[in-house]
Amino acid sequence: MKRLLLIVAAIVAMGSATAQQNLWKSQSVVSPEIGDDGRVTFRLYAPEAKSVEVAGDFLAPGVESAVMTRSEDGLWSYTTEPLESEMYYYSLRIDGMRDINDPSNPYLVRDVATQMNYFIIGGTRGDLYMAQDVKHGTVARQWAEMGGRQRRMVVYTPAGYEDSRRSYPVLYLLHGMGGDEEAWLATGRLAEIMDNLIATGKAEEMIVVMTNGCTRHVAAPGYSHEGMWHPYMSGSMDGSFEALFPDIVEWVDDHYRTIARKDKRAIAGLSMGGFHSMQISKEQPDMFGYVGLFSAAIFRGDEGVEIYADLEAKLERQFSEGVKLYWIAIGRDDFLYDENVKFRALLDAEGYPYTYRESEGGHVWRNWRVYVAEFTQMLFK
Amino acid sequence: MKRLLLIVAAIVAMGSATAQQNLWKSQSVVSPEIGDDGRVTFRLYAPEAKSVEVAGDFLAPGVESAVMTRSEDGLWSYTTEPLESEMYYYSLRIDGMRDINDPSNPYLVRDVATQMNYFIIGGTRGDLYMAQDVKHGTVARQWAEMGGRQRRMVVYTPAGYEDSRRSYPVLYLLHGMGGDEEAWLATGRLAEIMDNLIATGKAEEMIVVMTNGCTRHVAAPGYSHEGMWHPYMSGSMDGSFEALFPDIVEWVDDHYRTIARKDKRAIAGLSMGGFHSMQISKEQPDMFGYVGLFSAAIFRGDEGVEIYADLEAKLERQFSEGVKLYWIAIGRDDFLYDENVKFRALLDAEGYPYTYRESEGGHVWRNWRVYVAEFTQMLFK
Repeated sequence: MKRLLLIVAAIVAMGSATAQQNLWKSQSVVSPEIGDDGRVTFRLYAPEAKSVEVAGDFLAPGVESAVMTRSEDGLWSYTTEPLESEMYYYSLRIDGMRDINDPSNPYLVRDVATQMNYFIIGGTRGDLYMAQDVKHGTVARQWAEMGGRQRRMVVYTPAGYEDSRRSYPVLYLLHGMGGDEEAWLATGRLAEIMDNLIATGKAEEMIVVMTNGCTRHVAAPGYSHEGMWHPYMSGSMDGSFEALFPDIVEWVDDHYRTIARKDKRAIAGLSMGGFHSMQISKEQPDMFGYVGLFSAAIFRGDEGVEIYADLEAKLERQFSEGVKLYWIAIGRDDFLYDENVKFRALLDAEGYPYTYRESEGGHVWRNWRVYVAEFTQMLFK
Repeated sequence: MKRLLLIVAAIVAMGSATAQQNLWKSQSVVSPEIGDDGRVTFRLYAPEAKSVEVAGDFLAPGVESAVMTRSEDGLWSYTTEPLESEMYYYSLRIDGMRDINDPSNPYLVRDVATQMNYFIIGGTRGDLYMAQDVKHGTVARQWAEMGGRQRRMVVYTPAGYEDSRRSYPVLYLLHGMGGDEEAWLATGRLAEIMDNLIATGKAEEMIVVMTNGCTRHVAAPGYSHEGMWHPYMSGSMDGSFEALFPDIVEWVDDHYRTIARKDKRAIAGLSMGGFHSMQISKEQPDMFGYVGLFSAAIFRGDEGVEIYADLEAKLERQFSEGVKLYWIAIGRDDFLYDENVKFRALLDAEGYPYTYRESEGGHVWRNWRVYVAEFTQMLFK
């Protein structure tokens, strides 16, 4: 048995070019370390550095980075004040270099073109964003033929889907500009949020479909023949995504066990995805019983594009046919706040019913995670 | 329209805390840059650094890192010789710090506890590891109830699975020690390899099931309630994974459209996964028509564990019942080479038929990608 253990250790050590050093490294430098009191300590071994800072959204508003201090043996560290329960991002700044990942923390999320380290402080919201000891839903990177091309989307099916014969309601959840079909899952913690809300009975069991809202591309960078470094500034506010959407819904209804009915179908999105949700839901007044606009980029769109024409008439049709919930959420500091005020004034002028949720903060994922958790609890009940 | 464009630019810029700087950054520093001649240039803006090196497996054997040179304005760079078509990993070393990711390259893979940047040189092998303009299979992170717990696995279904009523053969593909159910997909490029081999008719359409071979855990780090920093040195060579395996096969046969027959079922794995494949296939002589041992950690296992007892008798039963392909592959420099020589001697002594494939190199993913691409082309024909 002892020989076997030695061999096992050798396999681990030799298992890859870098495994050995990292197994030891991860034992020697722990970063970040989350204390029981919610204080977080970042550490970096950088004996020759002259200046090391940690930048992240755990710092007070307006504070970009915190200075780390050097121990005699070259280990830099910084300990925060107690942090409230939340998911936080950070990166390091070393001698004028920015966006350096913490080499002791393998947990990263990509947001647009940046990889950022993250950590989660448990408790209230943080618990919602962490995998808990509950049943987990399955997440598929689903390729589907639509609009003449195979396109990629991410589909969450709730725990038990495979063993049931039931049909489920569907939420279509759309990303913002620069994002893609991976965004809600990675930075939005969608799977964890849904698992936890469903397990505690706070949300109905539902399928969540996360599409790629950029019709010029078929998939997130790296997952298609379009290559790995295609431009990220490739939004889709030209009407093409809205025009494609009925094909997406048809494909999902054909291939998943959905309840293919307006009162069991929702659409929501953040920023550009909020724009898309507004536009698509008014184009398809029979399709969506629930509409969620999170920090929505509410604009009329290019009037020359048919889909963006006649906004008022289409909204009138949508609201006269009925919407169970039209939910508008935005933070007080959001740069799109005024555009949302204008849009609500337009709805108010006609007496169209909607629910308004105003939060602290700006155009950030911290708000969008809260919004999606609140919105999904109101669906399909 | 001009106003819309300005607003669009604002949305992108404000879309996240870090999007703005990175959109600009990615335009100013390009790294890595792959030239038409296969030379790769790495760049890092580090005006105050005294020493910057790039470490990676593109360097000559025995060479750990290459020294980058500084331009007047603080941009460090290094250009390789022309590289052969392959997927390569690298990280940066800056003033004594190791394992620093390239902040200009958002493409990373996690191997055990390390995040490494990667790039792919197209051409022969590299083309096989890149997404091409072909139909793509769907990849599901599938949770399944087995052995009394919900466990996570990764399931590849070939393009067209959703639209067909056919049943498919299944390859069970197992990771090495320290790895998990994500390993074959991330570092092994399994989805790209299968898409490309199937699209060109070189491999049969098949389902590939990638399990988590560590029974102490239910999922890769971060995806379960076991937390995000659980120990990585958590192999499973105690018989528990082998004992669980029939439950896994039963679940897959119950929930996917499989051809539930020995001649349409394969098992293969790398390192510890090769050990598992050897042990499981001899425990279940009716189950697997194809067995692949890639750089296998071929040991007898602990004789006190029933599953590991009576190796010779169980191999005799397995080979007398018949195996369509028993494939053993290893690199000449692999530290497990001698153990594989011994195992082949044992098979030779009894005249059991197997196919042997010896390659250059050692215990590395570069070999395992080649092995899986060769092995899958021989299956189910």
